[in-house]
Amino acid sequence: MLQYLAETGVKLLKIEIWSDFVCPFCYMGKRRLENALQDFPHKDNVTLEYKSYELDPNAEENPGLNMHEYLAEKKGMPAEQAKQMNESVGKQAAEVGLTYNFDTMQHTNTFDAHRVAQYAVEQGKGEEMTERLLHAYFTESKLISDHATLIALAEEVGLDPDKVTELLKVDDYALHVRSDEEQARQIGVQGVPFFVFNEKYAVSGAQPEEAFREVLDTVWKEENERPALTPFPSSTKSETTYCTDEGCEVKE
Amino acid sequence: MLQYLAETGVKLLKIEIWSDFVCPFCYMGKRRLENALQDFPHKDNVTLEYKSYELDPNAEENPGLNMHEYLAEKKGMPAEQAKQMNESVGKQAAEVGLTYNFDTMQHTNTFDAHRVAQYAVEQGKGEEMTERLLHAYFTESKLISDHATLIALAEEVGLDPDKVTELLKVDDYALHVRSDEEQARQIGVQGVPFFVFNEKYAVSGAQPEEAFREVLDTVWKEENERPALTPFPSSTKSETTYCTDEGCEVKE
Repeated sequence: MLQYLAETGVKLLKIEIWSDFVCPFCYMGKRRLENALQDFPHKDNVTLEYKSYELDPNAEENPGLNMHEYLAEKKGMPAEQAKQMNESVGKQAAEVGLTYNFDTMQHTNTFDAHRVAQYAVEQGKGEEMTERLLHAYFTESKLISDHATLIALAEEVGLDPDKVTELLKVDDYALHVRSDEEQARQIGVQGVPFFVFNEKYAVSGAQPEEAFREVLDTVWKEENERPALTPFPSSTKSETTYCTDEGCEVKE
Repeated sequence: MLQYLAETGVKLLKIEIWSDFVCPFCYMGKRRLENALQDFPHKDNVTLEYKSYELDPNAEENPGLNMHEYLAEKKGMPAEQAKQMNESVGKQAAEVGLTYNFDTMQHTNTFDAHRVAQYAVEQGKGEEMTERLLHAYFTESKLISDHATLIALAEEVGLDPDKVTELLKVDDYALHVRSDEEQARQIGVQGVPFFVFNEKYAVSGAQPEEAFREVLDTVWKEENERPALTPFPSSTKSETTYCTDEGCEVKE
């Protein structure tokens, strides 16, 4: 059955964002994009779609290392050097108003957090849930794989805690997470954050605000300056079976 | 406020159709497109948007001429020749199963019919109302500017007759009609029917079914084979502020 849709006016600008909750540059990139959007005159016509991406699907739920030790082990470097790197990242985060508490941060597996976020997206709370999880991890040093923690955070953003309890017990929304990750693989994502604007332009990494401003302006102009129409079929002579204010042309 | 949307899967194929209810090739073109859509494997993902277009905004409500005389006057030709032209058009219509009764057809002004159709689109009944109006004019020889007639036809397709009575009394939906006509002017429409596929390809006139099949296949392939992404910004070296499964790269 064919449907009719009302005229919607200007086109929406869709931004798909692959990110992980334990990814320091994802939170910064999110904030920089948001800052760029604040000044974007067409921000009400922008939709954000947060996508699941686990940096390490095999990450332990509780590795028993602090973040400096964890990074040192991951990168094979002295703990002191790892600490300096974390401090450097923390400074960059502070520049966009974010507080990263690396000393107490608890690295963990994010699969369940992504499942809850997928449920939140479905309930129209994706924005709030994503922000809440990032804040819980980077600033509040919460263990965001812990089910009681996830349920409490979900309730804070207005989700039904019973529903979240239930979905965490079983495999709900696992396929949503895997589907996002498969899509990322297909389009060649090798790291996060990864932003795709109207399925056309890709921004890799937490680029400066200015880069986000540029891509927003570029995509908006391209999409809303109605493109020249291509006559179809182009190969055959146009049939004269149409009507104008002069009357209808009859095909002989 | 930014909104989150769930993943929608394949892209819809949108067809915008500018047409008038007294345009013989519009009804034929509509039927040919519908026939092409019947065989289109992705027809459930197609949306049709009927747009208003008055061939003659100054047309009288009841010119007091039969269609042969009306055409003769319009084209400045003998009535007998006009009748032959109408018969030729009628034969083409018959080929797609439509009956055009030119002997009793009542040419008229279509502004009010377009207003009712705009209301129908808003109510999700655009398809039914458009078809009903064309059938009323071409086959049943109804005067489709007559308010009682419009109200009865609208009620037949499930619209509230009181609402239609009310909107006909005042200027409701006039701006919708004018907006469609202005849009047509902007994209260079010079006659109807005029079909636009995904704001990209234009089909002018009642092309053969085969042409509609071709454009449907072409647009579908173009839109659903995900285009290669363009890195943005392309001019600057990519910042190393992202995380991979190897860890996060720190900008020096």
